[in-house]
Amino acid sequence: MKPSFREATPDGDTLPRQLCDHCGYVAYDNPKIVVGAVVRFERQILLCRRAIEPSRGKWTLPAGYMEHGESPQEGAAREAFEEATADISIEGLLAVYTIKRIGQVQLIYRARLGSASFAPGPESEAVRLFPEDALPWDDLAFPSVHWALTQERAAGGPFVNPEGSETARL
Amino acid sequence: MKPSFREATPDGDTLPRQLCDHCGYVAYDNPKIVVGAVVRFERQILLCRRAIEPSRGKWTLPAGYMEHGESPQEGAAREAFEEATADISIEGLLAVYTIKRIGQVQLIYRARLGSASFAPGPESEAVRLFPEDALPWDDLAFPSVHWALTQERAAGGPFVNPEGSETARL
Repeated sequence: MKPSFREATPDGDTLPRQLCDHCGYVAYDNPKIVVGAVVRFERQILLCRRAIEPSRGKWTLPAGYMEHGESPQEGAAREAFEEATADISIEGLLAVYTIKRIGQVQLIYRARLGSASFAPGPESEAVRLFPEDALPWDDLAFPSVHWALTQERAAGGPFVNPEGSETARL
Repeated sequence: MKPSFREATPDGDTLPRQLCDHCGYVAYDNPKIVVGAVVRFERQILLCRRAIEPSRGKWTLPAGYMEHGESPQEGAAREAFEEATADISIEGLLAVYTIKRIGQVQLIYRARLGSASFAPGPESEAVRLFPEDALPWDDLAFPSVHWALTQERAAGGPFVNPEGSETARL
């Protein structure tokens, strides 16, 4: 038997959900939380070159899905260790982005690396410190990486999606 | 046939997930996003008395699960309309709370009510404006409502769980 779902509105609910054709299980498709960090070491920023699709070969922030049993800050630090073997200190919330098309909320933190110690994890081809005035703007993996690296240059926050981006296909 | 799941680690994954006994569907139990607001009208704050469990009869912020296709701010405004028939303006992010035991991340916004117009929605027994110096501290529905109402009195943010609360059973 293979997974098979149909769209229908359960009793007492107000929106259509995905119901299993076999057993009636309701698979709520809740927005998912991505946690990540713009990690600084002196006047440089740590980026990972993706070893997996989508956007394989492009540069990204250490980031990934938040898991149960951790705070967003703990999740962002875990992802930096998994993807870049980097031991980071979280400083504060930089941005909350919404990617409506794929149902994602991204919580991106400002962070620091204590020493220039890092190495690629299994999902990264390479990890590098880029001087803040020589970031690989033309080879970034996702629009939200561009937003975060741009907004991180300003004080304050948390920032949100840049104006106009909500309607773009991101 | 009834829904039936077992815990097992899918190929290529690092953590145990819930797998359907019938078809192998993987039900990822991602943390869920709750969006809500501390809503001010002049020197008063809008609270809802819950008509449903848990904490039926207690006072809470307008808040609920974020849906697909909306930003957290839009979700917080939608919940204020559903629970309190209140048309609010979101001002900024007040707090990001993590309730690890139940896998929740709460994004709580500062908001304003344009006019004293509100009425209970189906999940509320009553909706009231409380003077800021006479909030129903002993009859709040959840610890995070207490945190948000306390932290909202200070400028700045976004705030996180108060010290020590991570280890408490919330």
